[in-house]
Amino acid sequence: MGLQPKVVALGGGHGLAASLTALRRLTPDLTAVVTVADDGGSSGRLRQELGILPPGDLRKALAALCGDDEWGRTWASVLQHRFTGGGELHGHAVGNLLIAALWEKLGDHVDALAWVGRLLGAHGRVLPMSTVPLEIEALVRGHDPARPQETTAVRGQAEVAVTPGHVQQVRLVPEEPPAAPEAVAAVRDADWVILGPGSWFTSVIPHLLVPTLAEVLSVTRARKVLALNLAAQPGETEGFSSERHLEVLAAHAPDLTVDAVLADPAWIGDRDTLEDAAKQLGGELVLASVAAADGTPRHDPELLAAAYDRIFRTHGRIGPWR
Amino acid sequence: MGLQPKVVALGGGHGLAASLTALRRLTPDLTAVVTVADDGGSSGRLRQELGILPPGDLRKALAALCGDDEWGRTWASVLQHRFTGGGELHGHAVGNLLIAALWEKLGDHVDALAWVGRLLGAHGRVLPMSTVPLEIEALVRGHDPARPQETTAVRGQAEVAVTPGHVQQVRLVPEEPPAAPEAVAAVRDADWVILGPGSWFTSVIPHLLVPTLAEVLSVTRARKVLALNLAAQPGETEGFSSERHLEVLAAHAPDLTVDAVLADPAWIGDRDTLEDAAKQLGGELVLASVAAADGTPRHDPELLAAAYDRIFRTHGRIGPWR
Repeated sequence: MGLQPKVVALGGGHGLAASLTALRRLTPDLTAVVTVADDGGSSGRLRQELGILPPGDLRKALAALCGDDEWGRTWASVLQHRFTGGGELHGHAVGNLLIAALWEKLGDHVDALAWVGRLLGAHGRVLPMSTVPLEIEALVRGHDPARPQETTAVRGQAEVAVTPGHVQQVRLVPEEPPAAPEAVAAVRDADWVILGPGSWFTSVIPHLLVPTLAEVLSVTRARKVLALNLAAQPGETEGFSSERHLEVLAAHAPDLTVDAVLADPAWIGDRDTLEDAAKQLGGELVLASVAAADGTPRHDPELLAAAYDRIFRTHGRIGPWR
Repeated sequence: MGLQPKVVALGGGHGLAASLTALRRLTPDLTAVVTVADDGGSSGRLRQELGILPPGDLRKALAALCGDDEWGRTWASVLQHRFTGGGELHGHAVGNLLIAALWEKLGDHVDALAWVGRLLGAHGRVLPMSTVPLEIEALVRGHDPARPQETTAVRGQAEVAVTPGHVQQVRLVPEEPPAAPEAVAAVRDADWVILGPGSWFTSVIPHLLVPTLAEVLSVTRARKVLALNLAAQPGETEGFSSERHLEVLAAHAPDLTVDAVLADPAWIGDRDTLEDAAKQLGGELVLASVAAADGTPRHDPELLAAAYDRIFRTHGRIGPWR
């Protein structure tokens, strides 16, 4: 593994951004493998108008990898800027337009993202998990509040994210999408793979539903860390305990094992129950304070980095520390 | 003046881009002062939707100042990329969107352009000539081909650029717009000011109609070079001789004097007539081969740089060469 471990982080949205912000402090060899199922807002409009992958989660990952000097921080905030006004640009994030332009110009998703990364001086690689735009379809109990016991199929990440019902299961449409070969190679060759934190059904589980990604996750020599969310999200994981998160993940990916499950002791329920749930996945429960000091269920990048660092030092297959 | 002269180039569009591409080889202290009267295409839509300065000519100037390595050249081509597809982004240039976003984000035109320049690693500064969006109104004879002798007022740069008639005169709307103070200061403190080449009525003359810019051009200690177009443009300067270009410029800016008028000997009519017209403006005619080798009326950047360099060396007020 050496002193600069190859780390691959799987996810999307704010959770992946938090993970990347932490991981970039630990290694220069960092790859994000990002969900491409968003169908809302700027991303939804762009995938519809231009027939492209939804760029929003890729943009957030790139912004998290921008440099930590004034130049990089300015690029990060420009990427995240959304146009105001009442016209056709309203709501589009600048970074989405930049990614879309490079895709149009260069044709190849992965090449174009590599170029966007170079243009922005990003500290790491950003890859789409699939080379085709995906949709998420969820089985939701009580999506219609008037019929709380009825289970219906809800199509679209944006719709699933705001359901008042309880998500039972998700699937991808198309059902067996092709993985980006570079993402498969990155997982295969990694020292560490990080899953989560993030929106459980729409940012963490989707990767496990891409057949080639699920396969390589079970054969890679990389150690795997599952970083739990601090709290359940209103909507898709309302009322979920930490161990319930592990159970639904396992239900979607029966072959998945992990080496460590990272949780914050202040944000879990019963420790023994969670420890058992982690063991079911083959992993050890690692407790570390990773929550922001303001009491909100957000990860603090410094603390998350320290926790990953400790795991890398103590749970590594090989390396200088054990 | 020293070995790194302060150079300010006034103009817009492809002509200014040609000048900047040449001048950046001669000095690191380069400022573009750019027209903001475009009302067509992507720029026209953005000024209408967001109430901003039209960014298109500023974008072209920034692209011309991007670095000459692969990173800079890629940025330049990304800035110039226009979205295809049939939707709301169609035709928008990426650089226009980037400039518009920074304006929205930072509020101040000049600060925001400075930041765009830094983000792109631009070799020089790009300033708008005015802080308010402008319109060009032209008096055109024969704008309606059915009435060839009638003179009518034609509003809008896009419309003026394609008139089948003969432009007699242009004015700005609003008529006495405020100059960008930084543009005035740049002209005042320059060693050299370059006017042209470019669309004569819509990119070169407009600067002279901004009162504060016209004033500072008459009091600056900078030497001034007027770079002539190689050929008349279909539409606005159809049938114009080189000397006619000088005459209409003088008619719009009675106080303007220049030190040198640069022309290509292969693209002028009678040399003595042009020399006299240059003298009327107080300037010396400098003949140099600056046209592209392919026979089209475009400036070759290397040759244009060599011509500017010769003028700087031989016509400087002070400096190491005379």
